[in-house]
Amino acid sequence: MALDRLKSVAQHISGTTPPPHPFDPLSNAEIEAAVQIISSEYGKLHFNAVTLREPAKKEMLKWLEDSTNVPRPIRVADVVVIAPGGKVFDGLVDLKEGKIIKWEALDGVQPLITMEDLQTVEHVVRKDPKVIEQCVISGIPKEDMHKVYCDPWTIGYDHRFGNNVRLQQALMYYRPHMDDSQYSFPLDFCPIFDADKQEIVHIDIPDIRRPVNQAKPNNYHPVSIEKEGGYRKDIKPINITQPDGVSFKVEGRVIDWQNWKVHVGFNYKEGIVLNNITYNDKGNVRPIFYRLSLAEMVVPYGNPEHPHQRKHAFDLGEYGGGYMTNSLSLGCDCKGAIHYMDAAFVNRAGESTTIKNAICIHEEDAGILFKHTDFRDDSVIVTRGRKLIISHIFTAANYEYCVYWIFHQDGTVQLEIKLTGILNTYSMNPGEDTKGWGTEVYPGVNAHNHQHLFCLRIDPNIDGSNNTVFQVDATQGAGAVGSKENPYGNAFFAKRTKYSTVGEAISDYDGVTSRTWDMCNTNKLNPYSHKPVSYKLVSREVPKLLPKEGSLVWKRAGFARHAIHVTKYDDEQLYPAGRHVPQTSGEPSKGIPEWISNSDASIDNTDIVLWHTFGITHFPAPEDFPVMPAEPMTLLLRPRNFFTKNPALDVPPSYCSTPSQIAGQGKVLDAADKMSQLVVTAGEADCCKK
Amino acid sequence: MALDRLKSVAQHISGTTPPPHPFDPLSNAEIEAAVQIISSEYGKLHFNAVTLREPAKKEMLKWLEDSTNVPRPIRVADVVVIAPGGKVFDGLVDLKEGKIIKWEALDGVQPLITMEDLQTVEHVVRKDPKVIEQCVISGIPKEDMHKVYCDPWTIGYDHRFGNNVRLQQALMYYRPHMDDSQYSFPLDFCPIFDADKQEIVHIDIPDIRRPVNQAKPNNYHPVSIEKEGGYRKDIKPINITQPDGVSFKVEGRVIDWQNWKVHVGFNYKEGIVLNNITYNDKGNVRPIFYRLSLAEMVVPYGNPEHPHQRKHAFDLGEYGGGYMTNSLSLGCDCKGAIHYMDAAFVNRAGESTTIKNAICIHEEDAGILFKHTDFRDDSVIVTRGRKLIISHIFTAANYEYCVYWIFHQDGTVQLEIKLTGILNTYSMNPGEDTKGWGTEVYPGVNAHNHQHLFCLRIDPNIDGSNNTVFQVDATQGAGAVGSKENPYGNAFFAKRTKYSTVGEAISDYDGVTSRTWDMCNTNKLNPYSHKPVSYKLVSREVPKLLPKEGSLVWKRAGFARHAIHVTKYDDEQLYPAGRHVPQTSGEPSKGIPEWISNSDASIDNTDIVLWHTFGITHFPAPEDFPVMPAEPMTLLLRPRNFFTKNPALDVPPSYCSTPSQIAGQGKVLDAADKMSQLVVTAGEADCCKK
Repeated sequence: MALDRLKSVAQHISGTTPPPHPFDPLSNAEIEAAVQIISSEYGKLHFNAVTLREPAKKEMLKWLEDSTNVPRPIRVADVVVIAPGGKVFDGLVDLKEGKIIKWEALDGVQPLITMEDLQTVEHVVRKDPKVIEQCVISGIPKEDMHKVYCDPWTIGYDHRFGNNVRLQQALMYYRPHMDDSQYSFPLDFCPIFDADKQEIVHIDIPDIRRPVNQAKPNNYHPVSIEKEGGYRKDIKPINITQPDGVSFKVEGRVIDWQNWKVHVGFNYKEGIVLNNITYNDKGNVRPIFYRLSLAEMVVPYGNPEHPHQRKHAFDLGEYGGGYMTNSLSLGCDCKGAIHYMDAAFVNRAGESTTIKNAICIHEEDAGILFKHTDFRDDSVIVTRGRKLIISHIFTAANYEYCVYWIFHQDGTVQLEIKLTGILNTYSMNPGEDTKGWGTEVYPGVNAHNHQHLFCLRIDPNIDGSNNTVFQVDATQGAGAVGSKENPYGNAFFAKRTKYSTVGEAISDYDGVTSRTWDMCNTNKLNPYSHKPVSYKLVSREVPKLLPKEGSLVWKRAGFARHAIHVTKYDDEQLYPAGRHVPQTSGEPSKGIPEWISNSDASIDNTDIVLWHTFGITHFPAPEDFPVMPAEPMTLLLRPRNFFTKNPALDVPPSYCSTPSQIAGQGKVLDAADKMSQLVVTAGEADCCKK
Repeated sequence: MALDRLKSVAQHISGTTPPPHPFDPLSNAEIEAAVQIISSEYGKLHFNAVTLREPAKKEMLKWLEDSTNVPRPIRVADVVVIAPGGKVFDGLVDLKEGKIIKWEALDGVQPLITMEDLQTVEHVVRKDPKVIEQCVISGIPKEDMHKVYCDPWTIGYDHRFGNNVRLQQALMYYRPHMDDSQYSFPLDFCPIFDADKQEIVHIDIPDIRRPVNQAKPNNYHPVSIEKEGGYRKDIKPINITQPDGVSFKVEGRVIDWQNWKVHVGFNYKEGIVLNNITYNDKGNVRPIFYRLSLAEMVVPYGNPEHPHQRKHAFDLGEYGGGYMTNSLSLGCDCKGAIHYMDAAFVNRAGESTTIKNAICIHEEDAGILFKHTDFRDDSVIVTRGRKLIISHIFTAANYEYCVYWIFHQDGTVQLEIKLTGILNTYSMNPGEDTKGWGTEVYPGVNAHNHQHLFCLRIDPNIDGSNNTVFQVDATQGAGAVGSKENPYGNAFFAKRTKYSTVGEAISDYDGVTSRTWDMCNTNKLNPYSHKPVSYKLVSREVPKLLPKEGSLVWKRAGFARHAIHVTKYDDEQLYPAGRHVPQTSGEPSKGIPEWISNSDASIDNTDIVLWHTFGITHFPAPEDFPVMPAEPMTLLLRPRNFFTKNPALDVPPSYCSTPSQIAGQGKVLDAADKMSQLVVTAGEADCCKK
């Protein structure tokens, strides 16, 4: 590491430059400092991760409350390395003292697969004689091995190999031309790669062979579009500009926008992490969430044939939503006035790397925020909304996940995820029956049924740390039609069920009752409604985990067994499928299943974490191929009984007239956007011309 | 009617000016012609509605197929009048021949309440001695009756009065100042207004009296915001412009955009009606929907106390989503480059009226349409999407409904509804218990629990009229973990259940299986997937009707008993709660319950209509008051197995590089939006300056 960088770290520590916020991701300099400290102690290692060890919450809350007098939490690097021979170590480095404070050898554990790990396999596969043999059987001449590609996945778990050896399974493809989409040419066999030996140790070969697809390529790049008639020419530009700048302020990584404040963190596993989300309620800065992140996900595939059961990627825990994040580009991924943040990581050799523009922060018009017209006199208020979006996109081999954290002026936090990219595909013979486990999306291409199940980790801080979760079900009133208590049969109410213990909180979605969940501070009642201040989780895309109880996925993805789990806060409990996910057997289940083992533990009026599994079940169709139009899904965290009124009343209206103004007493408020224009289009009838 | 207008109608008919499209709403001239014809026959009448009688579908389909040779369907006016004495007549007028082709006297039926009907009641109420007496009891001096207001609702149904007399119930309010929001000052009694007598015929007075609220006003207009600190000043403008014009063409009322064509109709009940929706699939114009509209809705309130059971507005059938539609304003309701359409109606006197700018048509950027990055070389495609939005907003007394029909480039049609406006409120005494039937959203203000249940009428035309509906449930494969057919327990599939008969199609939502419904043309298989071409209804906000079986709402809103009904197409079946909704008793139930009485009727491979009830259950909170931030809900109609590939592949990408280009062979496609800019915000740290 360069001396000046080390110096910079030292300066941060000694206070000569502004020190990082305790939630800030490790800087490149800090990463290199941690590597230096470890390497000088333990010699040459492969670095798997060097990331911020977030401060203990207890300590951090104190500092947040009084950052002038309370000592700033120290910077600690959380380190994962693989030593020669494949031995895995977890470590912690105190960056202030420059010393290793934890160093632990792990057994039967594999840390996630990095991009570098992924890159390796294809080169090995192409040279492996047995793979070449299988390619020839598939109809690919051995001199065409440079046209053979693979998407290396973690092996998931395969009982034949266990978890002491670091393995990847290579999903095989062919490209007739280097620009052809390989997903139209899946191969039917699956080599197993040993990361330590750097060689193929096994090939899974199906009973029924499926030679390489003879269909013509199915592409999406310009050459093929031009061949099929070219691009449409009838889309006129839409320009979105903010000539006076944006409405948010950036202080370090703290974003200040429309009464919201949020610290934007980022790590290699979860990608964006939002910390210390507060809302300035007329001068009273009220905490809402201590931490929000997508903490895990699993994508089980539904084809029962071997070895497809191994396809159930934990994209965050096994690969890292941060590591796989895209460098976003202006005017492509991001439109309008954009603020970017970079991401710093370590590479295998221990050097710090940077993904430029990893996080996009921008505003969008949000349509009508509220409107009301009085039918008597047409007096009216129309107020347009604005939203702030903090986003990143990551590529998990074939798929892309676009993650948007959206802040609204009415106090709502929305998480929107768009799925795009390319379907994972498998080969099929002409006339072969998919048996319903997949869809032939293109001749010879079988896209298997799958689910995308995300685990949202919500660390609520609703006016303080001590919170309680209630399940809310829309429920008919008691009493038959004609009864005294329900004479007209129209009674209904919000049935609230308190989750007092960890066991009670293990729960599923109920579409019939439009089930929601309130995260409440029962110590503070809304002065009007006399109900506890709360944030409500409104989530409607909540399929159940389809792999059965006792199945490999069910065992490994314990978090996905239920839509909701609530645990008492613990600094160590961040990853719902465990800290090191690849090659876990699920025996025992890691993560949430461990944390909920004491089902009587109280979660009533204490510091809690709510884990919510949501997502979609995807039965592919040809429309999803050769590249999938983005499929959106969303959920909301809405203030309920948190404010005493609509918190966005002071957003300037576009237009407002009152009855007295309509009656001629005073001037209406007209702040209509003057950039908007009427359009007259080409073929328009004369009656419509204005 | 002016002679030149009559002439213009005659010219349309004789072909000297372009005749209206058969789906076009009646023009002002046509409305006046119909009125003239009826008035000359029957003398002075109160006109309730004069609207297009849509052409018979059979005839219309023929004309759509060959509009050159097939005779153009004639223009027919559908007329509802109330004769002196309250007698109601339904009529049809042939506008070509200028003659009345149907004239039917109706018994025990009340047509909807018009805006003029609504306007009357408040004036009567203020002068009624018994109402004045009640106001005094409530604490309002009788000289303050000009400060007393009412929202007149249809009475719904009250067995004491039946349906031979036309009635409204007056929900009473007080305004200390004319600009104060009355919804903070609800009164506890409810006068009943007789439209024929133009007088108050009864007052419902509760056992427990609740004097007028003594809380201070709770307003949202500028004066009150200024008093509380004024408007926020930190929102910088966002400009959205289309300097080269918009991407859609307008021919009459047919919109042509991105392969879509749709005729935009409008009527007084449903508001926007979309007809003959087609998609140009590489030169092949494929029909998708013959007609889409919101056909009905009901808003049951959940307080069991008399007379709140009468609060269950059918906002479309009882008041008219078209009649209540807002005249939209540029730069307020609508931002960007906007095309408006007006709406023509009749008034009570038989004159034609116009709501200017009733429909807004505009484009929006839709974020990322699709993206994929190859992790090997970072070759990438990023394509941004665009959407077309056809919208209107209507005000139903206290509430506003914003209805957005959204067309996407990937073949999806989305319906988004935003609820805003003001909660219906009732009075409560200090310390009174809401008993869970409502929420005290402000001192002395009880906002009752309610549902908004919409009925979407889908007339599918998936590659032709003969369609079939399948229920699709995500389902675990058969066989226990370890069994031969499901060795790993991971098998799952899309279970498809055909609705062969009307009875089989009566069905509910199932959140656990992520239930969707496919509208299929089983006569045409996708050449790749070998599955029928289809459009899938994806709808996740599907609460059940909470009023109980046998209750008044259950009887009157038969359509809302289930999420899905499918009927064989019938020209007469447009309105799921009946043609004339006010004061229906529900004995027997009108609309859908009548149409599904033959549960064995085949709906397999024939011309069908799918009725979908969806919506939300709203448990109010103080955040919703004094004006409610827009609450969105949405559903999708998605092509599945309809196209052979992603139909938006030819949307020009913002950026595209291929592996060969990355390797130096050729130039990448860079069409990034050059209007987008990096921002540097005030407090930004120097590391972020670019």
